[in-house]
Amino acid sequence: MTGRIICAGLGPGDPDLISVRSDRVIRGAAHIAYFRKAGRQGQARRIVEGMLTPDVREHAMEYPVTTELPFDSPDYIRLLSGFYDDWAAQLKALVATGVDVVVLCEGDPFLYGSFMHLYVRLKDHVPVEVIPGIPGMVGCWHASGVPMTWGDDVLTVLMGTLPEAELIRHMQGADALAIMKTGRNLPRVRRALAVAGRLEEAWLIERGTMPGQRIARLAEVEAADCPYFAIVLVHGQGRRPTAGGDE
Amino acid sequence: MTGRIICAGLGPGDPDLISVRSDRVIRGAAHIAYFRKAGRQGQARRIVEGMLTPDVREHAMEYPVTTELPFDSPDYIRLLSGFYDDWAAQLKALVATGVDVVVLCEGDPFLYGSFMHLYVRLKDHVPVEVIPGIPGMVGCWHASGVPMTWGDDVLTVLMGTLPEAELIRHMQGADALAIMKTGRNLPRVRRALAVAGRLEEAWLIERGTMPGQRIARLAEVEAADCPYFAIVLVHGQGRRPTAGGDE
Repeated sequence: MTGRIICAGLGPGDPDLISVRSDRVIRGAAHIAYFRKAGRQGQARRIVEGMLTPDVREHAMEYPVTTELPFDSPDYIRLLSGFYDDWAAQLKALVATGVDVVVLCEGDPFLYGSFMHLYVRLKDHVPVEVIPGIPGMVGCWHASGVPMTWGDDVLTVLMGTLPEAELIRHMQGADALAIMKTGRNLPRVRRALAVAGRLEEAWLIERGTMPGQRIARLAEVEAADCPYFAIVLVHGQGRRPTAGGDE
Repeated sequence: MTGRIICAGLGPGDPDLISVRSDRVIRGAAHIAYFRKAGRQGQARRIVEGMLTPDVREHAMEYPVTTELPFDSPDYIRLLSGFYDDWAAQLKALVATGVDVVVLCEGDPFLYGSFMHLYVRLKDHVPVEVIPGIPGMVGCWHASGVPMTWGDDVLTVLMGTLPEAELIRHMQGADALAIMKTGRNLPRVRRALAVAGRLEEAWLIERGTMPGQRIARLAEVEAADCPYFAIVLVHGQGRRPTAGGDE
């Protein structure tokens, strides 16, 4: 009898924000798999530290490349494609032996998650269950302590990898903004926010809900300071019935 | 000694998708409060059915008005403002007696949540903790079984209450779309999607992750069929390394 692939969304980083279902699946797992950069522990694995059974089998899926090549270069695409093909085949073979494999995935697996590349390769061949998670950006707006969207606010989620002109256009058109994949793109994101007239409202949230969390006004962050694990937020200011008519 | 307000994000509807922290807080609550339409059980209360202690004290916060008045009319704004003022005062008085009050909130409390109106009225006067939840739209894209955003996809979240021209402009500009507050606005949302050339890709997800969940292509849903508790999704189709070069 074949086993299953279960992708467990981990949420924004605090293990207490994992869903009841993912928590149960992770604690009961005999096999776990997770993505990481070669030579690192990896964020997903770090989140579940202390939750695993002592005899769990771990399968670290190490990216063959991360930021060394442009993400739209033929070499990058070929390497990543082969990497996902290989791991899809390995997980399929493992599941064929009758075991379940729990794939750990930060945030929500269907929102820009690496697991989606395995999902499209596996879903027609083996049973796959995917458990949602609280997206990283949701954890970040809670870390900021300020509600994100009110009334009819338009929320737009952007990748810092987009061309500057596109960033500006979207920043001008939306009320609330969440900008992911900042890191080395942060100088461009900052310029685009300034052109769009949104820089003064922007916050940089680093390691939201995790140890070492840092919250700062982006305009006050040093230009050379480009933390990898950070999200930029602009909160919506939409329609709301005021308190006592004077708020 | 004063108590605390703890807002527990409930996630998209399946109780198994509540966070470990919210789950613990709800099961241990001596006082719970939740919004609902007068005369209804309410969605938030329904989600936690079976999780509460037998002697829990319940505080149903019944909206004085829902869709009977236009949401931008002076009467609506005055009624809602007074309603939030009253409940903020009641919860503050309750907390002053030394008890904790757990306020239940569907989805994520800081993403268009009614709790935010209490939060801004209470946060400078009593201790308030807010626990994030999986947003309803995340549950809906999992219900669809299709990943939501890839690569550099731009995701835009829209309210069905927006004017048609604004809906069209945003629908044309984004890759992935989540449209909330559909209900009686669904005919306008459908027209806007058609004008923007996105109707054929659109899905209607009703009661995502809950009993009675329904998933349909919006173009195939009867025009008169405007379910209240539904979200419209258009999935992103962004950049991804193809499987074996032939996907």
